Amino acid sequence: MLGSLQLIPLRPFPLVEPGDDLAGLVAAALRAQQLQLVPGDVLVLAQKVVSKAENRYVRLSSVTPTPAAQELAAQADKDPRLVQLILDESREVLRVRPGVIIVEHRNGYVHANAGIDRSNLQQDPDDPQVLLLPQDPDRSAAALRDRLATLCGVAPQVVINDSAGRAWRMGTVGIAIGCAGLEAVRDQVGDSDLFGNRLEVTMPAIADELAAAASLVMGQAAEGTPLVLARGLQLAASEAGSGSLLRERDMDLFR
Amino acid sequence: MLGSLQLIPLRPFPLVEPGDDLAGLVAAALRAQQLQLVPGDVLVLAQKVVSKAENRYVRLSSVTPTPAAQELAAQADKDPRLVQLILDESREVLRVRPGVIIVEHRNGYVHANAGIDRSNLQQDPDDPQVLLLPQDPDRSAAALRDRLATLCGVAPQVVINDSAGRAWRMGTVGIAIGCAGLEAVRDQVGDSDLFGNRLEVTMPAIADELAAAASLVMGQAAEGTPLVLARGLQLAASEAGSGSLLRERDMDLFR
Repeated sequence: MLGSLQLIPLRPFPLVEPGDDLAGLVAAALRAQQLQLVPGDVLVLAQKVVSKAENRYVRLSSVTPTPAAQELAAQADKDPRLVQLILDESREVLRVRPGVIIVEHRNGYVHANAGIDRSNLQQDPDDPQVLLLPQDPDRSAAALRDRLATLCGVAPQVVINDSAGRAWRMGTVGIAIGCAGLEAVRDQVGDSDLFGNRLEVTMPAIADELAAAASLVMGQAAEGTPLVLARGLQLAASEAGSGSLLRERDMDLFR
Repeated sequence: MLGSLQLIPLRPFPLVEPGDDLAGLVAAALRAQQLQLVPGDVLVLAQKVVSKAENRYVRLSSVTPTPAAQELAAQADKDPRLVQLILDESREVLRVRPGVIIVEHRNGYVHANAGIDRSNLQQDPDDPQVLLLPQDPDRSAAALRDRLATLCGVAPQVVINDSAGRAWRMGTVGIAIGCAGLEAVRDQVGDSDLFGNRLEVTMPAIADELAAAASLVMGQAAEGTPLVLARGLQLAASEAGSGSLLRERDMDLFR
């Protein structure tokens, strides 16, 4: 249907191991579904598979918490070693309550527990491990885009998404923590509306909306689908990454 | 493709006038594209067409601002009559800065300028009008769902979306201000992850993710597309509306 957007889960997608060639796995998943990339295609990857490929695992037994982490852990009712990792991954702690520490991640986004996750990991109960966010998700997205251009002959736009809580509203939504090749926030200022009036300032956060859309599809399958092909959009190109999604602190009325 | 989600813009969609039978227009738009509703279909409507059908227009010349509205208008650099409407539509003013008044809307969502809009309206420059949000978007969504069940033989799930700014992040995303027939927030607590570990608390805000996905498609067309059919999901049913998306103030660390 003209103008329609299709979100296609690429599955089965293998469990990803440290050092895996993620672009190669993506290309294989496309081939397995007999899909060929076309210009305008966007690939949305769950943060978790990027982190796994980049071996962002940390065993809690390897972490020695500082006194500051121990104090915060008591407030948040969390493992002090996990809290140490949260602090290491953050610029600033914004809020604390039992069960959650909301920080500004060193990459700029506000995120609960610095996005550190322990679900969907193979766990040794005696020596649990956690998974950090990718070191630099924009760089990861750009590398995937480049490598897929080589493997597939077409450079897809790439979004790396994660689930995030929000102020004001319940539930999590997919957000873009990294992207490559697309304009993350579209600036429509100066465009005209249906009646030729100048539009009020409207800047859709395209990459976040895509991240949320893909999250819907990723979450539908019992087994989890970390890779979604979004086809049918023609999004503006940009090599600027995801930084335009981040509100500067002094422009943020709710921090 | 199995498990894929299709977001189909239903266009051309007519300009909606007060008193129009919106369900009838939706049914006609489906027929025009030779689409028949099937179980699991979700229709996402832009708030604006619902408000127009419900005649939520107000001419600013009809409004007399109170002194409180005049004072707030000076702070926000806005028309005092518009500010009066914002106050009338709100429970509480949360933040003010030039150009924006962020409120808790009387329906519970935190929203800039109480969601009152003046773009995409036919304007008499000497007597401008604005458009308020629907009186009760959950009721509007439920009524559409019921009427479409009669007209089409299948009751679609319905989401009414609007564009909203956010704390922490730049740009707007689609959010659900009303819905009918679907579970707005899915509670996955107690489910197991890929490795059989108990999932940490994950509650995807399904209706918001759908609202964001549809917003991507609505915004693609130059002429605007206020109606999107989302096909391919099988969302849990609920008649509870959109209230589960609203974070109670005392559970909100950022208000």
